[in-house]
Amino acid sequence: MFILQTVEDFSLLRRSEPIIAIGGGVLLDIVGLAASIYRRGVPYIKVPTTLLAIVDASVGVKTSINHFGRRNRLGTYYGPVAAFLDTEFLSTLPPDEIHSAMGEIVKMAVIKNSDLFGMLEKHADSLIKSHFTHFSAGEIIWSSIDDMISELEPNLWEKNLKRCVDFGHSFSPLLEMNSISNDSVPSLSHGQAVALDVLFSSCLATHRGLLSIVDLSRVVEVCKACKLPISHPYLSNKLMLWESLLDTTRHRNGNQNLPVPNNIGSYVFLQDITLEDIEATIEIYEVATNECH
Amino acid sequence: MFILQTVEDFSLLRRSEPIIAIGGGVLLDIVGLAASIYRRGVPYIKVPTTLLAIVDASVGVKTSINHFGRRNRLGTYYGPVAAFLDTEFLSTLPPDEIHSAMGEIVKMAVIKNSDLFGMLEKHADSLIKSHFTHFSAGEIIWSSIDDMISELEPNLWEKNLKRCVDFGHSFSPLLEMNSISNDSVPSLSHGQAVALDVLFSSCLATHRGLLSIVDLSRVVEVCKACKLPISHPYLSNKLMLWESLLDTTRHRNGNQNLPVPNNIGSYVFLQDITLEDIEATIEIYEVATNECH
Repeated sequence: MFILQTVEDFSLLRRSEPIIAIGGGVLLDIVGLAASIYRRGVPYIKVPTTLLAIVDASVGVKTSINHFGRRNRLGTYYGPVAAFLDTEFLSTLPPDEIHSAMGEIVKMAVIKNSDLFGMLEKHADSLIKSHFTHFSAGEIIWSSIDDMISELEPNLWEKNLKRCVDFGHSFSPLLEMNSISNDSVPSLSHGQAVALDVLFSSCLATHRGLLSIVDLSRVVEVCKACKLPISHPYLSNKLMLWESLLDTTRHRNGNQNLPVPNNIGSYVFLQDITLEDIEATIEIYEVATNECH
Repeated sequence: MFILQTVEDFSLLRRSEPIIAIGGGVLLDIVGLAASIYRRGVPYIKVPTTLLAIVDASVGVKTSINHFGRRNRLGTYYGPVAAFLDTEFLSTLPPDEIHSAMGEIVKMAVIKNSDLFGMLEKHADSLIKSHFTHFSAGEIIWSSIDDMISELEPNLWEKNLKRCVDFGHSFSPLLEMNSISNDSVPSLSHGQAVALDVLFSSCLATHRGLLSIVDLSRVVEVCKACKLPISHPYLSNKLMLWESLLDTTRHRNGNQNLPVPNNIGSYVFLQDITLEDIEATIEIYEVATNECH
């Protein structure tokens, strides 16, 4: 409402004076929503300043705010007139922000791009240590964005609710929201929550015989190299995982449409996950992440 | 927020469980906005129960709420999956609601449809007295809706901000909002405010030599036959009229785009109205409405 009040006070022309949103993903999402509902929509421009916003929030047409304790519960599909991506912003970004962003990049690599995954296996350590000044940074960022665009473009309004880019976003929304409001567990950033979901969904694939133990270990190793968390108390909370899947299923109109890797870089959708599958997956997850400690 | 909370509590599926909005225009507009932002859009169906909602709010894709003391300040373009129009609802509608709705019908007749205007001249009295059971009711309602659809359909997202259906909606938004919050003047319903704007804009056309005094008198007479107000203290408040035009101009991206009739049933757009024009129009308005008393 503060943003809307500011826009109102500015006496904005309706079509030719775009709002310029400069910031991280949360800011871009909120300003996008405000722009989409002020006078039924005024133009806006996205200028992401975090790595996560560069590879994720800047791509596509989704705007949102959290509400009712749920992630992205209110929002619109409303494209910006432009998004200006400038990696110069990364030089002053806190390391935690870099690590968290790797969650979305790892997601894309595991589900859709084995070359990108290979680059991460090879360079993640140097990338992180060099604060994204390593020579591979550009290719890794643009490769991740290219994959995102190629998935979103033909399905911009999500007419099709089977989306591989929802990988990492099936269990994570509730985990992320709950972790923020619960002082007794570590708070999860969006990228961290996505990474944990990537791990858990990969374990689910292994439980179903789709992903080899070897490939699962590679995913765990890449997450570690990217300084992503590989464990969290919520990942043993079967009821919370189940509740999250139920809400995600409503969001996917009654279908689980759960993307899981059947190899590094390719995927299938699962529709019949049960609470028993969640229980069995928790066991695999605990073994897989402990083994690698 | 109450609507959104109810939808949240219902655990709505995202695509196959439409919200059914049954009520007047305000309700349809608000529910439409809620549907458009819940989970970035869930389907909804409009069932209008007032004459105004049948001829106006049910047609098109605009949703909205008033905010910052301004009419329709927040909203979206978001079409329903269906609109079910049933004139049976009119039989239990209070007479005031019928009268108010005539504002939008008169608007359409004056700006775009001289046949409809002729029908109103002939039947408005019987229509009103018979509570819309007169034989002409159906043709008048559907003719008004047809005109609206033919204007909206090619310009559904309002890429073009020169819209003849904005006739009656240039000065009225602020008058309507201000009248509601001011106990010392009569409150204006939407249809009443539109009718006053229709009259004032017609007087502006006469002031500019576009509409004859005879045709202006016909507009006044039809408004009277439809039990629409033809006077209000705000119609002599030049600064409020001017302020309203300034905000409307921002809404039309810096252009006045003011539709006025140059005959009954046809229009031109004015772009250069000054405060002096408003003053001169107030004088014409006072003469035209007093003459007919």
